[in-house]
Amino acid sequence: MTDFWKDTPSLEKLLAEVEAIIVDNLNDPGYPLADQTSALIVSGGKMLRPAMVLMASGFSPTARNSQTRRKIAHIAAAIEILHTATLIHDDILDEADVRRGIPSLHTKFGTANAILAGDWLFSRSFRLVADYAQQKSARVLARFVESVCSAEIRQDLGKFSFSTTRREYLRTIAGKTAALFSLALHVGAAEAKVSPIVTQRLRRAGYDIGMAFQIIDDILDCESDDLTMKKPTGNDLKEGLCTLPLIYALEDKSKADELKTLLAARPIGDEQAGKILKTVNACGALEKARTAARQFTTRARKEIAALPPCLARDELATLTEKLLTRTY
Amino acid sequence: MTDFWKDTPSLEKLLAEVEAIIVDNLNDPGYPLADQTSALIVSGGKMLRPAMVLMASGFSPTARNSQTRRKIAHIAAAIEILHTATLIHDDILDEADVRRGIPSLHTKFGTANAILAGDWLFSRSFRLVADYAQQKSARVLARFVESVCSAEIRQDLGKFSFSTTRREYLRTIAGKTAALFSLALHVGAAEAKVSPIVTQRLRRAGYDIGMAFQIIDDILDCESDDLTMKKPTGNDLKEGLCTLPLIYALEDKSKADELKTLLAARPIGDEQAGKILKTVNACGALEKARTAARQFTTRARKEIAALPPCLARDELATLTEKLLTRTY
Repeated sequence: MTDFWKDTPSLEKLLAEVEAIIVDNLNDPGYPLADQTSALIVSGGKMLRPAMVLMASGFSPTARNSQTRRKIAHIAAAIEILHTATLIHDDILDEADVRRGIPSLHTKFGTANAILAGDWLFSRSFRLVADYAQQKSARVLARFVESVCSAEIRQDLGKFSFSTTRREYLRTIAGKTAALFSLALHVGAAEAKVSPIVTQRLRRAGYDIGMAFQIIDDILDCESDDLTMKKPTGNDLKEGLCTLPLIYALEDKSKADELKTLLAARPIGDEQAGKILKTVNACGALEKARTAARQFTTRARKEIAALPPCLARDELATLTEKLLTRTY
Repeated sequence: MTDFWKDTPSLEKLLAEVEAIIVDNLNDPGYPLADQTSALIVSGGKMLRPAMVLMASGFSPTARNSQTRRKIAHIAAAIEILHTATLIHDDILDEADVRRGIPSLHTKFGTANAILAGDWLFSRSFRLVADYAQQKSARVLARFVESVCSAEIRQDLGKFSFSTTRREYLRTIAGKTAALFSLALHVGAAEAKVSPIVTQRLRRAGYDIGMAFQIIDDILDCESDDLTMKKPTGNDLKEGLCTLPLIYALEDKSKADELKTLLAARPIGDEQAGKILKTVNACGALEKARTAARQFTTRARKEIAALPPCLARDELATLTEKLLTRTY
């Protein structure tokens, strides 16, 4: 879990409980890849989504009584297990060799087992939700997975065309990232019986945080290196994905022709990606993308400021600032 | 749906309703592979599992009133969608090019989209269950998917070792096939409020039918040809799976050495598989496997005979006989 949460000790403690529930659930004799999956979650995962479930529940005065706390912790675990399932399947799709600094599951155990591991985790997540959450939450969760898959299928069908519009890009990241942030805050609030108005505001804040988070992630992929990001640079590009910085760069008429020629080369390896990213960097596209991220963060900040003042609101505000300013 | 159900017209009509619900659910604008997935289900799928949901519900006097009927039909659809998700992921694992006489999804749209399509179908199935079934059924369903994945991971880790014991084989097919037959009968009965004793008997019958069904499937893979089976012969062998006929053949001391030499060759292509199957056929292993299947069918028959007499029982008996005697 790293020291990501050291500013928020009460949250850190709750997250440790969630982590224990996750490890306990993976340690099922029927699931042969428990150790490797646990390693994936425990080593370097920020537990952002479960933290959001916990923070949202914190807007209820009863959230930290033992019964609600236990329920919320299990739902938070389910959300992280679900997220891990999508990461494992994602790494197969993206042919990514490394995840959080360790070899990805399919690299170590083959595609077949990674598919099955993801499926197993999906099911365990649904089972935890069925066990601990309201039927309504189960439905919302299932719909979320559908929206992720749809977004990913759309993304895959458009790979290497490098013709994504800003609108399409935003729709895709809404489905694949913002939806889960929004869902995490929504479910945490709804399950702790937070008022509908506050729940709705949290859902909107989650969406905005998620959008900002994904745009920043895509920016970092254009500038980071293996050491800081724990994943290779220019990864999106090599996979044929057209993210916001590239979309802005392609909109720059003085660079478009040069970029299109560079993008037409196959395969796009390290060297080619390096050239493309240099051009993207040179034309101010990263700053434009940062501005776009900032717009979502500003909206998120406004939603958060309008929430009832409490420890959970402070925690959420702290997290949002951290996500806006992160450089790795 | 073929004419598999022509002996049981009332069931055939209900299954047409289920098929319509499935097609309707797949026709979601968010799911880009609707047509291809529908084709997979409508063309040649026997709808065995949804039929079991329907038959089991038929043991309740209120099963065919409009509200229960609607609920049961949606749960039956969820079970078939779930089964289809596992088939799509299975075909990736098995590198199978053909499914039900048409190209498999990953052959047509690539592994990435086939993984996502399976995930989407899993979620839609869970959503339907969350919408129409009791929380308990959702839990049972999630646990079932876990058991399938575990069984498949175990199976995959043992591939090409050809050292599976009969016990391990039975455990694997229990997880990957019998569990869903059992679940289908259990959920159909439980959701239609059939008495606990009858529900339990149905669950046991489902297990026995499923075991017999899978053993027969594995026997047919040792003898069928492309025309009748709609899938290539010796497929299991080429994938490195050790099924019951091969296990029996390996237990035959006069054949074991010859077989082990044949099994050591790599890759196992059509010609090599042909030689192995000839040896398996020659030593009576298929007949032994048929006897094993018959034992499960006999047990299933006994359970069915002990059920309260009604149309549903006759339908279930008819189906069981069909499954025992099928040759394709």
